[in-house]
Amino acid sequence: MKIQTPYLLFLGEGDQAKTSSGVSFWRRDVCAGQLRLPGCSVDLGLPDMSIQEAAAQGVKTFLIGVAPHGGKMPAHWVNLILEALAAGLDVASGLHTRIAAIPEVIAAAAQHKRQVFDVRHPQQEFAVGSGAPRSGKRLLTVGTDCEVGKMFTSLALEREMKQRGMNADFRATGQTGIFIAGSGVSVDAVVSDFVSGATEFLSPANTDDHWDLIEGQGCLQHPAYAGVTLGLVHGSQAHALVLCHKAKRTTLLGYDNFKIVPFDECVAMYEEAARVTNPHAKCIGMSINTSHLQEAEAQDYLIKMEQMVGLPCVDPVRTGVVRLVDALQ
Amino acid sequence: MKIQTPYLLFLGEGDQAKTSSGVSFWRRDVCAGQLRLPGCSVDLGLPDMSIQEAAAQGVKTFLIGVAPHGGKMPAHWVNLILEALAAGLDVASGLHTRIAAIPEVIAAAAQHKRQVFDVRHPQQEFAVGSGAPRSGKRLLTVGTDCEVGKMFTSLALEREMKQRGMNADFRATGQTGIFIAGSGVSVDAVVSDFVSGATEFLSPANTDDHWDLIEGQGCLQHPAYAGVTLGLVHGSQAHALVLCHKAKRTTLLGYDNFKIVPFDECVAMYEEAARVTNPHAKCIGMSINTSHLQEAEAQDYLIKMEQMVGLPCVDPVRTGVVRLVDALQ
Repeated sequence: MKIQTPYLLFLGEGDQAKTSSGVSFWRRDVCAGQLRLPGCSVDLGLPDMSIQEAAAQGVKTFLIGVAPHGGKMPAHWVNLILEALAAGLDVASGLHTRIAAIPEVIAAAAQHKRQVFDVRHPQQEFAVGSGAPRSGKRLLTVGTDCEVGKMFTSLALEREMKQRGMNADFRATGQTGIFIAGSGVSVDAVVSDFVSGATEFLSPANTDDHWDLIEGQGCLQHPAYAGVTLGLVHGSQAHALVLCHKAKRTTLLGYDNFKIVPFDECVAMYEEAARVTNPHAKCIGMSINTSHLQEAEAQDYLIKMEQMVGLPCVDPVRTGVVRLVDALQ
Repeated sequence: MKIQTPYLLFLGEGDQAKTSSGVSFWRRDVCAGQLRLPGCSVDLGLPDMSIQEAAAQGVKTFLIGVAPHGGKMPAHWVNLILEALAAGLDVASGLHTRIAAIPEVIAAAAQHKRQVFDVRHPQQEFAVGSGAPRSGKRLLTVGTDCEVGKMFTSLALEREMKQRGMNADFRATGQTGIFIAGSGVSVDAVVSDFVSGATEFLSPANTDDHWDLIEGQGCLQHPAYAGVTLGLVHGSQAHALVLCHKAKRTTLLGYDNFKIVPFDECVAMYEEAARVTNPHAKCIGMSINTSHLQEAEAQDYLIKMEQMVGLPCVDPVRTGVVRLVDALQ
């Protein structure tokens, strides 16, 4: 699976487009335009463009990174998909609904010889994890919770490492990440027996100087998603872990009765799990989202965290990830 | 999903029928007969019976608990399935191949108004785990590895508890267990995001005196399957854990480079994981398969293990699980 660029980003008709925002933030160069329906209050600052205009400008993929209001796909969205296929574009969707299961879409894709990607749904079968050591190096972002910046941190690391001329690739495990990378595996949609095998597939053997920067998911102490996380930890055979956190969060998002465990315990827990498949695994630092704090408070928070865990603590936006990459080198 | 009994056990044409053996061992009373094809060297000691004879004797389900040689379903097996449906039987299969996806089987099931169960494939969608406390008590069997007797131990506990008049139910998480219980969820086939939610569904709130005896899967330190195990551990909200082991095994089955961790560490690791969703979780003992040892050696092994871990250590066959149930009461 390789999603072709440039993209036309579909922003729908609502007031949110988190996935498309992420794509345009990290891969602005491959976002040719945005398509907004009446009612849409999002503006990513890209040229507004119809499907026909996009096709004329060489766009390769119509990207649906926004969920319909109420969850159900409206008929006029299906019409847009059909229009895109007819115009010679592929279509990539991050919806829960499989667009590749809609009969008209199947027919149109076949007729126009275009591809349709449902990135939330794995499009292949995986083997079970082998646990066999493989060459190359891998870094996995892990978290104190969900939605703490694991994808953002992985991408910030990739950017910093590439700027230094290092050999590094971001490996996507969620829908936004897959749109950004153009490929990847939505691991939380993989059958549980195959999660670590899918992660081995996602980050295969590589040259000794190469780093895979694997996007983490969930949290090892999460009552719903910890199994996904553990499969990722084992399958990635990570040499380096970066623990991600959202400043001042004390309980799991949406699970108020579950406290976030102390950070030193969290580091120890992830290192212990990771060492099952890579005895050299080590947490090299923390990446902390302090975007909701004032500058002075944020700096103070980062310093206190650093004293507490004894590892470099950065905010990828506020301070950058220079010190994490220094720690890797 | 509730698979109706009595069963006609299909033993195929080979020399192994592990699943059917398990069913006839634990639920002899619901196994009316066996059907063997030429070449079959297995004999479970049940009456040999054709599908027509089984139907005449009130059998409700034709049970396929044996894999075809080479993995591919032969045409004459499909014919047997069609014959069973035509004779008024349901069909339950533990094959990887979905028999409910075979067009002739779909047509025959509809025509004769019979049900077809693919127990390896979840037949419903689950919610994500809530982590919300629920009433009733639960015991989960966990392991130092795969294939160490987790299902056997759970069933032995159910038998002993029922004999004492306790309120207890075995909850199946694998194909053999599902045939035995008549229902359950093949958790390793559940999409990874929903494993703990599926486990919550499998062992719902119950009366305060009721015990669910949940069949464990995999091992928390297994490079392929640990994610499944952790989802089960979190979703079960177990009060009690029983650690299962095969005597003298030192490395993971099929993963020779992975050592089985020391038993005290193993107990601590499972208790720590289980306490994420149930702070009272405690390992109450070990269940050890010593079937490959001589009597004196086995007894010696159990005594040594008991001294090492400081918990009751039993072999469910050799010593029974009386002491584990004593520990629960």
